[in-house]
Amino acid sequence: MTRAHNPQLNKNGELRHLLTPEGLPRDVLTHILDTAQGFVSFGSREVKKVPLLRGKSVFNLFFENSTRTRTTFEIAAQRLSADVFNLDIQRSSTSKGESLLDTIANLEAMDADVFVVRHSDSGAPFLIAQHTPPHVHIVNAGDGRHAHPTQGLLDMYTIRHFKGDFSNLTVAIVGDIVHSRVARSAIHALTTLGAAEVRAVGPKTLAPDNLRDMGVRVCHDMAEGIRSADVIMMLRLQNERMSGALLPSAHEFNMTYGLTPGRLALAKPDVIVMHPGPINRGVEIDSSVADGPRSVILDQVRFGIAVRMAVLSIVASTESPA
Amino acid sequence: MTRAHNPQLNKNGELRHLLTPEGLPRDVLTHILDTAQGFVSFGSREVKKVPLLRGKSVFNLFFENSTRTRTTFEIAAQRLSADVFNLDIQRSSTSKGESLLDTIANLEAMDADVFVVRHSDSGAPFLIAQHTPPHVHIVNAGDGRHAHPTQGLLDMYTIRHFKGDFSNLTVAIVGDIVHSRVARSAIHALTTLGAAEVRAVGPKTLAPDNLRDMGVRVCHDMAEGIRSADVIMMLRLQNERMSGALLPSAHEFNMTYGLTPGRLALAKPDVIVMHPGPINRGVEIDSSVADGPRSVILDQVRFGIAVRMAVLSIVASTESPA
Amino acid sequence: MTRAHNPQLNKNGELRHLLTPEGLPRDVLTHILDTAQGFVSFGSREVKKVPLLRGKSVFNLFFENSTRTRTTFEIAAQRLSADVFNLDIQRSSTSKGESLLDTIANLEAMDADVFVVRHSDSGAPFLIAQHTPPHVHIVNAGDGRHAHPTQGLLDMYTIRHFKGDFSNLTVAIVGDIVHSRVARSAIHALTTLGAAEVRAVGPKTLAPDNLRDMGVRVCHDMAEGIRSADVIMMLRLQNERMSGALLPSAHEFNMTYGLTPGRLALAKPDVIVMHPGPINRGVEIDSSVADGPRSVILDQVRFGIAVRMAVLSIVASTESPA
Repeated sequence: MTRAHNPQLNKNGELRHLLTPEGLPRDVLTHILDTAQGFVSFGSREVKKVPLLRGKSVFNLFFENSTRTRTTFEIAAQRLSADVFNLDIQRSSTSKGESLLDTIANLEAMDADVFVVRHSDSGAPFLIAQHTPPHVHIVNAGDGRHAHPTQGLLDMYTIRHFKGDFSNLTVAIVGDIVHSRVARSAIHALTTLGAAEVRAVGPKTLAPDNLRDMGVRVCHDMAEGIRSADVIMMLRLQNERMSGALLPSAHEFNMTYGLTPGRLALAKPDVIVMHPGPINRGVEIDSSVADGPRSVILDQVRFGIAVRMAVLSIVASTESPA
Repeated sequence: MTRAHNPQLNKNGELRHLLTPEGLPRDVLTHILDTAQGFVSFGSREVKKVPLLRGKSVFNLFFENSTRTRTTFEIAAQRLSADVFNLDIQRSSTSKGESLLDTIANLEAMDADVFVVRHSDSGAPFLIAQHTPPHVHIVNAGDGRHAHPTQGLLDMYTIRHFKGDFSNLTVAIVGDIVHSRVARSAIHALTTLGAAEVRAVGPKTLAPDNLRDMGVRVCHDMAEGIRSADVIMMLRLQNERMSGALLPSAHEFNMTYGLTPGRLALAKPDVIVMHPGPINRGVEIDSSVADGPRSVILDQVRFGIAVRMAVLSIVASTESPA
Repeated sequence: MTRAHNPQLNKNGELRHLLTPEGLPRDVLTHILDTAQGFVSFGSREVKKVPLLRGKSVFNLFFENSTRTRTTFEIAAQRLSADVFNLDIQRSSTSKGESLLDTIANLEAMDADVFVVRHSDSGAPFLIAQHTPPHVHIVNAGDGRHAHPTQGLLDMYTIRHFKGDFSNLTVAIVGDIVHSRVARSAIHALTTLGAAEVRAVGPKTLAPDNLRDMGVRVCHDMAEGIRSADVIMMLRLQNERMSGALLPSAHEFNMTYGLTPGRLALAKPDVIVMHPGPINRGVEIDSSVADGPRSVILDQVRFGIAVRMAVLSIVASTESPA
């Protein structure tokens, strides 16, 4: 795929929308991480706010509820001095039968600059991006099981921060990989950034063998999966989405795939433990690990604001040459 | 009615509250439209924000839910640099039995400058205006079936933008007119601004003959109603409010009053098609018309922000001489 | 208790958190009232906004719904030029099983400066304060039946504004005292500030005799309770929390403890009548009293913004020496 064909990039190969890490060139990903680094160092308590998006309008369009992710984008946009508008879509005109694209067209007419979109349908942010004028930018904040690119990028930022480089890393992603947009976005970004080995670790129902098509090594045995890993990314066991006899109970999952101190000892001594949150203590991760010296879970949250500031400021300044 | 008796005007005839277009002199309406024009031309993407209401507090009091209208006022107020507070009234103290006027008195004590009020009871914003001190201003964002003045004014702005002058215009308003505060406010404004002919088009249940008392021509036949019209304003068929055997089904309404390309051909060639949104595609308007070259529906949305900026900035700067 | 042991104060005896008036030294309370006075006089309509908290992030964490109190903190924070984030906790990750402290740790990682916390559990803000890093500040906006310190302080501000000094004052607090965090915080503050006599007035179910342990005089007779009072603080009869045969009906309460013009005549001629709102007209207070010349209920609301500005600006500027 050449740059010209990627709907996220303009003719000059610059990031116009952020929809998925899949297909984004390595230098675009690296530019986001470098820009975020500026915001992290800038983000001392004294000078948190910068005027980069002053006068711009950022709309948080959350068709699927997520107070946590919405708040991170709201904070990022406000620290860039943008005007931020949160739209409670469940209560809006879409409930009167208005179509998604009509809702978007109306908001565009209100002079929106950036839409941050979360939607339960995979592909919804792509559909919106296809129908927006050149000066409007879309950031995917999670679509169905498809992608969660800012989470993937903050995971990459965290790994780069603690490990410096991707080329010699073994990264184990553990848990419900098949349903996880977080895992998909991380896998795409890790592949592009040149991680040595990415492992998908879980039972066959959650880490099926066909994940090999994404270039990962599939491990159904936890010990094998995390042995000598540099990075362990635990995923949330989404009890609220689980059903059916094939899916594990919380207790059963903890017994077989939960990250305990004993299992953690199988990884490299300087392993970092990540989790997208919110964590289920005692299910996919033991409290002593989540709160322990190898955990970088709260660093992920901190870097997440800087990464979102980077993404918003980059897309908002990308022109769309005709 | 002299100016002194209009509760919306101060002793100098300046706009202190915007409650309804009814009874407002032509020069007051024209001043709002002229002011809005400044904000539209000002509203290039580079310099969207002006400091006119810096330090002022605008409260959105929506006793009736409307994400769309609330958002337009929130955008308008933020672009004027006001502090904006959205109050979710369904969840507030009124649910503990506090009276409307006690709620307002409390908010006034918090140093409010402007209240934007939507209420399901006709007249609620008038009641509030009667009980506010001189430095507080009320903008009606829709009260019951009574008035929706900023929608009426953005409709006038749109017509003036495309037609230049009202004096030779034939305007056809089509659909559920009897229940529509949008239609009432448009009719009052069109009459004051001197439109040549205003037609109310619909079945007898929705466009009853006594609408003639408002100075409009009532047409129960769609062809007659839109023939040679300069402006067609389609109204939303409010399925959610419809009930009873006398009211039309969506399909039935589309067959008799829906704006199809064939019917549109009966109007003037340079007719403009308006709709307050959200539209029901295939019910009151066909998609090919809504998205077609005569449609100005999204222009209405765009101008709506500028008109609301004009109204907020005008009322907030109106003094109330004792 | 020495200052060093009060978890609300840093080593220098400065206010780091505001959790309860209980145990705060008189000079700390007085400093808050003096600071608030600056914001009241500053708060002319022209210059409402000050840049004291520019770039700071204030999070409103309301685990218990209160549109009114949340709005007052939002206004106060915005007038200090802070960025304010309202978190709808009922809809957030805590509903996915995340613990309170994990939620707080995540928000801290987002670079929060101040948490304004309301919680139905007594002590929740203390628990949070125990687990926050030195640069984060907690303001209790009401916890269970325990404390509501900013309400207590605005009550003190109001009394001082109208009475000048506390040392000769008789203050009668009337109604459901046992369940009221407002009453508890007022009693603690009045005691510290040196009020001559504080009376708890109500039936034995609502003003039990063991309230004497707080240093107040308990009166079950309304006439005795308010006779010669300088200040009457009526409490809200919380119908929504009342149940059981021992609790009075609204009518019964009005007959025995409602503040009528006749009863008001028993107090000093220059008595001030206070109420935390929202009022139940005709239950704990008659309309003619609530709207009458001795009522300072709306002054309380007005001073409440200034007091919250004072608290936010004081805690946010308190360093935590190691």
